[in-house]
Amino acid sequence: MASVNRITVLAVGLIGGSLAKALREKNYANEIVGWGRNESTLQRAIELGVIDSYELDLAQAVQGSDIVVIATPTLIAVDMLQQLAELVPATTIITDVASVKGNLLRAAKQFFGEVPANLVLGHPIAGSEKSGVEAVNEKLFINHRVILTPSQETSIEAVSTITDMWEVTGADVVTMAVDDHDEVLAATSHLPHILAYALVDALAGQKEQQDIFRFAAGGFRDFTRIASSDPKMWHDIALANDKALLKMIDLFSAQMNELRDAIAKADSEAITGCFTRAKAARDHFSDILSKQHQSTITDE
Amino acid sequence: MASVNRITVLAVGLIGGSLAKALREKNYANEIVGWGRNESTLQRAIELGVIDSYELDLAQAVQGSDIVVIATPTLIAVDMLQQLAELVPATTIITDVASVKGNLLRAAKQFFGEVPANLVLGHPIAGSEKSGVEAVNEKLFINHRVILTPSQETSIEAVSTITDMWEVTGADVVTMAVDDHDEVLAATSHLPHILAYALVDALAGQKEQQDIFRFAAGGFRDFTRIASSDPKMWHDIALANDKALLKMIDLFSAQMNELRDAIAKADSEAITGCFTRAKAARDHFSDILSKQHQSTITDE
Repeated sequence: MASVNRITVLAVGLIGGSLAKALREKNYANEIVGWGRNESTLQRAIELGVIDSYELDLAQAVQGSDIVVIATPTLIAVDMLQQLAELVPATTIITDVASVKGNLLRAAKQFFGEVPANLVLGHPIAGSEKSGVEAVNEKLFINHRVILTPSQETSIEAVSTITDMWEVTGADVVTMAVDDHDEVLAATSHLPHILAYALVDALAGQKEQQDIFRFAAGGFRDFTRIASSDPKMWHDIALANDKALLKMIDLFSAQMNELRDAIAKADSEAITGCFTRAKAARDHFSDILSKQHQSTITDE
Repeated sequence: MASVNRITVLAVGLIGGSLAKALREKNYANEIVGWGRNESTLQRAIELGVIDSYELDLAQAVQGSDIVVIATPTLIAVDMLQQLAELVPATTIITDVASVKGNLLRAAKQFFGEVPANLVLGHPIAGSEKSGVEAVNEKLFINHRVILTPSQETSIEAVSTITDMWEVTGADVVTMAVDDHDEVLAATSHLPHILAYALVDALAGQKEQQDIFRFAAGGFRDFTRIASSDPKMWHDIALANDKALLKMIDLFSAQMNELRDAIAKADSEAITGCFTRAKAARDHFSDILSKQHQSTITDE
């Protein structure tokens, strides 16, 4: 029983490919079509059972599709929206998987003249340190959140269809306002990545670099793991979500300045207050996470 | 075959207790004596096979010992040094396990009038999110580094004895200058803890706190794990190592300001440069760590 006739996934990387494979295994659509620029990747996706067929021509790829999923890197998603504005009818639902939503909403208004009713912006909170079609995992979204950010203009039926699609993969679908999404992600994901990159880059520039890394222990390893993430992807995210990210950087820097002053003045009460509040909040978060049964290394 | 007759461990918590238990299991000393303020903890340590006996009186505890290990919290270690200056002869080796070494070296000069030849400052790079005698683990130091920081005044024989003691626990012993130790630890351990505490405290103060923690994923969990560390312990470390830590905070803040400017100006080259260098350094560190076969969650 297929619920949808044809789905097109634009770019068959980790996220797009994992979605396609999960939907294929559940027989959710009659046909899942991949599109991309690299034909060998698309051929490999067929070998791996990720897609049913592929097209190199975008117009051909989206022709007759019920759902088009933009799964390209963040900044390229804007170009895709521009091209889709010319290519797809209002009966085709457009959705995406990018980590930032505000820039796409603004792009949609520009290219479509208004927020189109058939556009459902979305963001699966799932990922891996690996990337590309070889890393595809049909279980990637199980018990992970997918945030959809519909606007007032968005069709309720379109939101319902995309919610169904993600639930088929095992994901837990929630909705949020676009601005709230971008602020929450700036706080919990984009800012931590920036801090980890800045810390490791600062230390790597020190003359004691060899010693520094030689004597670092488990806490450092966990704290800096996200500095191994793809630089190109995070460059795109930083620029796409610059406004919310700069706000969070400034919030954090103000906090750091206070803490620096407290250490310089040996203000035990201020230092202990900050550390104690942070521990309580982190322990609370740990409880939430364990209740969600989150299991894998995930972040985007 | 016992190499040493009597060892006294001052405070039988996670580190002191794990050291005592590891040495007992290897039959390294004829007697391992615990000292502390809480008699029920010391009784429990005997039940758990951590120590052979205990004393509540410090003079009794250190009487006739070959080695006295200060394993109290960081700032209390200074008080212990002051008391030991009156109590132990030059034939007793004094060592410690604190995370900062410069403040203890300064305290030793003050209390002993000079750096005593029988003082071997040390720091095992091992720990756990748990603490106290119930968390004692005789395998805690296996394949972990112990940094000793002897001065010119330190007896070579004393350094050799303390090196042997740690090697018996399975640790990998290295030596460093006191200032180098405190700078390296400020960079790789103390600064990351400060950043994690500051981040979580800043976010916990936001009105969207509930949402922020609800939608945080694995990257945030790893990045902020160390914000669950003991606030009192890290307060002590921050103050004991204030000079090196403030230097590292300023180095980091300068890097963050540059990155903030680059994002605000959409300077792709600067952003990508920082992220790419950081990823290369972190991947290099990851290789070093995997070669060391480090296995457990450890940091101090």
